[in-house]
Amino acid sequence: MSRVVLAYSGGLDTSVCIELLREKYDYDEVITVTTDVGQPREEIEEAEEKARKLADEHHTVDAVEEFVTEYCWRAVKANATYEGYPLSTALARPLIAEKVLQVAREVDADAIAHGCTGKGNDQFRFEAYLKAHGGDEFEIVAPVRDLNLTREEEIAYAKEKGIPVPVDVDSPYSIDENLWGRSIEGGVLEDPTRKPPEEVFEWTVSPEEAPEEPETVEVEFEDGVPISVDGEEDPVRIVELLNEKAGEHGVGRIDIIEDRIIGLKSREVYEAPAAITLLEAHRALEALTLTRRELSLKSRMDDTWSELVYQGLWFDPLREHVEAFIDSTQSVVDGTVVVELHRGRAVPVSRESPNSLYDEELISYGEKKFDQRVAEGAVELHGFQERLAIRKRKP
Amino acid sequence: MSRVVLAYSGGLDTSVCIELLREKYDYDEVITVTTDVGQPREEIEEAEEKARKLADEHHTVDAVEEFVTEYCWRAVKANATYEGYPLSTALARPLIAEKVLQVAREVDADAIAHGCTGKGNDQFRFEAYLKAHGGDEFEIVAPVRDLNLTREEEIAYAKEKGIPVPVDVDSPYSIDENLWGRSIEGGVLEDPTRKPPEEVFEWTVSPEEAPEEPETVEVEFEDGVPISVDGEEDPVRIVELLNEKAGEHGVGRIDIIEDRIIGLKSREVYEAPAAITLLEAHRALEALTLTRRELSLKSRMDDTWSELVYQGLWFDPLREHVEAFIDSTQSVVDGTVVVELHRGRAVPVSRESPNSLYDEELISYGEKKFDQRVAEGAVELHGFQERLAIRKRKP
Amino acid sequence: MSRVVLAYSGGLDTSVCIELLREKYDYDEVITVTTDVGQPREEIEEAEEKARKLADEHHTVDAVEEFVTEYCWRAVKANATYEGYPLSTALARPLIAEKVLQVAREVDADAIAHGCTGKGNDQFRFEAYLKAHGGDEFEIVAPVRDLNLTREEEIAYAKEKGIPVPVDVDSPYSIDENLWGRSIEGGVLEDPTRKPPEEVFEWTVSPEEAPEEPETVEVEFEDGVPISVDGEEDPVRIVELLNEKAGEHGVGRIDIIEDRIIGLKSREVYEAPAAITLLEAHRALEALTLTRRELSLKSRMDDTWSELVYQGLWFDPLREHVEAFIDSTQSVVDGTVVVELHRGRAVPVSRESPNSLYDEELISYGEKKFDQRVAEGAVELHGFQERLAIRKRKP
Amino acid sequence: MSRVVLAYSGGLDTSVCIELLREKYDYDEVITVTTDVGQPREEIEEAEEKARKLADEHHTVDAVEEFVTEYCWRAVKANATYEGYPLSTALARPLIAEKVLQVAREVDADAIAHGCTGKGNDQFRFEAYLKAHGGDEFEIVAPVRDLNLTREEEIAYAKEKGIPVPVDVDSPYSIDENLWGRSIEGGVLEDPTRKPPEEVFEWTVSPEEAPEEPETVEVEFEDGVPISVDGEEDPVRIVELLNEKAGEHGVGRIDIIEDRIIGLKSREVYEAPAAITLLEAHRALEALTLTRRELSLKSRMDDTWSELVYQGLWFDPLREHVEAFIDSTQSVVDGTVVVELHRGRAVPVSRESPNSLYDEELISYGEKKFDQRVAEGAVELHGFQERLAIRKRKP
Repeated sequence: MSRVVLAYSGGLDTSVCIELLREKYDYDEVITVTTDVGQPREEIEEAEEKARKLADEHHTVDAVEEFVTEYCWRAVKANATYEGYPLSTALARPLIAEKVLQVAREVDADAIAHGCTGKGNDQFRFEAYLKAHGGDEFEIVAPVRDLNLTREEEIAYAKEKGIPVPVDVDSPYSIDENLWGRSIEGGVLEDPTRKPPEEVFEWTVSPEEAPEEPETVEVEFEDGVPISVDGEEDPVRIVELLNEKAGEHGVGRIDIIEDRIIGLKSREVYEAPAAITLLEAHRALEALTLTRRELSLKSRMDDTWSELVYQGLWFDPLREHVEAFIDSTQSVVDGTVVVELHRGRAVPVSRESPNSLYDEELISYGEKKFDQRVAEGAVELHGFQERLAIRKRKP
Repeated sequence: MSRVVLAYSGGLDTSVCIELLREKYDYDEVITVTTDVGQPREEIEEAEEKARKLADEHHTVDAVEEFVTEYCWRAVKANATYEGYPLSTALARPLIAEKVLQVAREVDADAIAHGCTGKGNDQFRFEAYLKAHGGDEFEIVAPVRDLNLTREEEIAYAKEKGIPVPVDVDSPYSIDENLWGRSIEGGVLEDPTRKPPEEVFEWTVSPEEAPEEPETVEVEFEDGVPISVDGEEDPVRIVELLNEKAGEHGVGRIDIIEDRIIGLKSREVYEAPAAITLLEAHRALEALTLTRRELSLKSRMDDTWSELVYQGLWFDPLREHVEAFIDSTQSVVDGTVVVELHRGRAVPVSRESPNSLYDEELISYGEKKFDQRVAEGAVELHGFQERLAIRKRKP
Repeated sequence: MSRVVLAYSGGLDTSVCIELLREKYDYDEVITVTTDVGQPREEIEEAEEKARKLADEHHTVDAVEEFVTEYCWRAVKANATYEGYPLSTALARPLIAEKVLQVAREVDADAIAHGCTGKGNDQFRFEAYLKAHGGDEFEIVAPVRDLNLTREEEIAYAKEKGIPVPVDVDSPYSIDENLWGRSIEGGVLEDPTRKPPEEVFEWTVSPEEAPEEPETVEVEFEDGVPISVDGEEDPVRIVELLNEKAGEHGVGRIDIIEDRIIGLKSREVYEAPAAITLLEAHRALEALTLTRRELSLKSRMDDTWSELVYQGLWFDPLREHVEAFIDSTQSVVDGTVVVELHRGRAVPVSRESPNSLYDEELISYGEKKFDQRVAEGAVELHGFQERLAIRKRKP
Repeated sequence: MSRVVLAYSGGLDTSVCIELLREKYDYDEVITVTTDVGQPREEIEEAEEKARKLADEHHTVDAVEEFVTEYCWRAVKANATYEGYPLSTALARPLIAEKVLQVAREVDADAIAHGCTGKGNDQFRFEAYLKAHGGDEFEIVAPVRDLNLTREEEIAYAKEKGIPVPVDVDSPYSIDENLWGRSIEGGVLEDPTRKPPEEVFEWTVSPEEAPEEPETVEVEFEDGVPISVDGEEDPVRIVELLNEKAGEHGVGRIDIIEDRIIGLKSREVYEAPAAITLLEAHRALEALTLTRRELSLKSRMDDTWSELVYQGLWFDPLREHVEAFIDSTQSVVDGTVVVELHRGRAVPVSRESPNSLYDEELISYGEKKFDQRVAEGAVELHGFQERLAIRKRKP
């Protein structure tokens, strides 16, 4: 009796996989796992319903809070973006892989399957994690990639086998959602000279349609992590609330050309109202509390962290070393930032911190606390060697 | 007969310097130089008028076009920002120093003077350049810093000596303008919990007051440099036109905590509509035409370039080496970007290039040009060593 | 009529390939190409002889001078080492690939073959170059890897087919040589707790057996490139002469654990007397002529260059950008370094340059040229912000 | 009653300071502090004897063990060198400053003085630390720099005042010693074309005079720190023993051009037998136990650590963040390295670790554990985007 556990979203790719795993791979039992990382409630229910029909057993795993506190909050501390993308899908993949792996162990499965294609990033993220932590316990199967299926072939196969095809199967867009963001690709977006049509957006109103009046939110941080937003302290509610509020003001739309792991350039559109608002606030607080040298080196460490996560290398020990650096810097990133939301923009308009390095007295003009003459020697030696070089090198 | 050349803006600091140079430093002749880098016409005329009254000789040097093509365009290629600041004042300082130095040589001066205080950045930028290129030819004098004068003391001295005090002397703000941007600091801005009041802005309307309707501009680049905007090809006109258009849509306001050269944190507000619009467009074009590895290393070189310029090390030979790298990357940064201006945002909505690395056919889902199975081996080796590490390091 | 061009070394792997290409891949004609990059004369002659017997046509391409001036000299400018390895084999691969590609075009071949296995680096270096520059013109074939052959299987196959097996087939070592260095791996070297036995070395005497008396060589550089060594100006002769002289003094042995491209750690032993001597001299000259900032950033660019070359990404446009930076720094790296060779060490003992930044007068103690009091202000502001941070952050 | 505490070495600079502090600065009491960081016993005793004569009170503080375990061991973990210099003096300065500060607090002093000149590094290191941790408690006085004294002037003043002049006052060399190394500068060394004469060395024999026979030492590490050398486990003894043994084999001589903090190039000679031996061993162990990505990023963090320490910014919070990264990597740097000492070279000849990433089975040639065909896909995608760039960018 052979048993395979499939990471299941309820979409076309993974629904088709259930049948393929039986027919082409000869597994006796297909067990589906859907991990709740904040995708829409209906999506999870639809997956459950379909699984009841198609799979031998189904598990839904609630990982929303873990996703926020163990993944999104680390992303905030790392100001995490990759080429402008705040890493929503990339952040969730290792968590989903972990949950699937747990189920595979519980049900004593022989193999783990996923529906990723061979052009995307998720195959790397998913498999690398499984291989790192599942070792040689499980065979890993990727039917859509192995069989090199196109979308059209999948639809044909689904129809042939009576697999329910999603109602939006004619939608040209490929979409992924979790609490940290919504990704849209495909369709007309594949033409980088075309502005994304309004129809691709669901979490955000158009900045043109957003309210005339700005709104502010107050974000409080401790050790670099948001601990309350307008009084709300529950981590999951903080993100939900900001997705809503900032989304209403058209905040969080991202439209970029992005380099996938294998080196294909791809046009990606994202909606991430909460992520963008929190990142703006966090950066403003760091500017107040960290020294220039800390900011400068941290910005490179942040890039490294983001790149590792984008590449699906969450399990890389290097991530932990980089986090040791980042966490060491965050102990002073406490305080409050007020962010104004308006017509597509999230702008910090006030920041304060008990650890602020800003010194109003030192900076103030009409005051003698800082003796200007001190600067003279520093100015004298500024670029000393470079000036020497210019003279010494002259013909 | 001793002669000093003074970098002259017409403001309080430098006007007071004219008299100080005579009285406290015993120079017989004070010659003033105002360099036109795109500050308001009236400012230059006011400087000329005051100089006629106070100085022994005055020079106005037109450097606007040189500023745009030799300084701003390099900043565009380098996506130049320092902690969010697009470097307007920092960019102009070495050019102003160069022009003052030229005049000093022409008039056979003994010394060069500037009005910088001891807390700011400009003393570093100005003196380092002069020392690098003026060598030991000229003494360098900084009266306000040497005498550790406060603003109040300067005003008192001006009144005592009959030096015309600027009409806005009661303005709490300290302002610097050139074609690439306008800097505002001081006054209520020194409180980082206060939103900048509307009164500090002159180049931009409030996003709340900006037009309902978005407007687009089309920017064409060659070798990473803007060669036309909506058909306008003159470099100076390009910047003027964008300052106007983008300013009308509230684009280009920046409000940051910035680390000055000596390590003081300072609250700085900027207006830079043209700079922000061009930087957004340039980055979008690079995302289309450069490889991931090029983008990633270039982003660090861009940071280095910006930091050197911020620190007033324009003359550092390292800048030229970094530019050799940057220029080598820019030969493919050709093409057109359409930027939408709306309510404070400048958003690229279309990008195209003859050197685009984006390949619609490769990316498209329903197509076999890219055999997905190729990815399998790459996935297999993705993170290979890191996975090995996890296993080998297990207790 | 199908025709394949094979990169041919005369060793076991590539000799076996000739027959495999006929038998398993059905090519009608196998044309062999040996590129002379300074490997031993006998090796080339042996390859020619074997090819006469086994192949349909053979080409020997002389690329020694090109190798030195276009590859090794760039490596000198970049102080090129990867984890301690001066990149000899890695440097030659793209050149060999280029020569093979040229022959393939001349003879109008259908395919290009190489003998690399699936665990090494050379498959990456070879194929990436061919795909970059050969595009879709040629099929690329790697018989040993495709058929997953072990060394034992190759020997058996060779004996069966009457392919001459190298006399040293029982040697446990795998060796690669070119003018820039000699690589040895395998055998007892696979045990990283064992010191390399003397038998693996051919270019260098043991430091224990080296002459009592040190010897010096004088290396002259222009633009960062060696232009004469003890009067010898011919580039190829310079490298030959230093391999000989430094080798006699036991200089150039390297024994490291190295990370291969796929992430396997490997124990590698190298001999590179000329490379090590020239790199030591070049670094000493840079220390004299470049500013601290130039040295520091260049060291990272050098690392990037070396990593690209190690990874076989010679064709990456990024290499050219990095070289633009490097070349821009090298225009002042002129001068002479005397290196003492003795008992395994190459130590610069004298360095001078017309562009030296070293200023004996400034440094000298008993002299007033540098007014020490200038340092006071610089000292005062040294670490200013960090000290502020310590105070502000105190509980 | 005013009281000053002076960091006292017993040398000319600091001996002269005692009298200057009374005569020129009007302090009533001068209290001297000598910190034992492993300089020669006689040096400390000489300082004590002179202090008895010249100062009002003297303290000798034993800090040798603290120096080794809290400073040198961190340097080992960070593979610390700056432009080739293993940071001996730089490492000890903050510790000496801390001890002087403690005494100043105990004796309730008004000021702290040091004998540094205005051209060296130690003024920066000393004062920055004191200002960071002593805040505004103490005035800081630097008589030699303030009075811009030359060496000749100091000697004249000493003779005039009856201050005992060191017996080696005619020695042209300026020397500093602690357990981690010995620095020599000045005299004929100021000519960078001259090989250092044998007379400058005290800890090492000439490689030419070193024993014919190599000797090995076995170094055991735990968490990146040496825990035993040939069975010796006491940290201080480990360093002493290696200084002796490696010194006898001529190991640890360094001769470089170094960039001082203010940007002067200086010719520096060092002896650091223990430091060099331990750094070689540590690096060899890291090569065995860390992944390529860990090695590569750590090497940049190591550079940052070294630069901070060289610049006297030990107190910079950034150092702690960098150490958080470094320490996180070191938890697997356990194991044993055998280093061969011979004729000026310290060469690791054996390395092993329970956390070794080296896998003899995977690497071995005649074996099927690693299926070579896996590499094919990875090779196929290697440099994929860069190759695309070459084709897309072609004219």
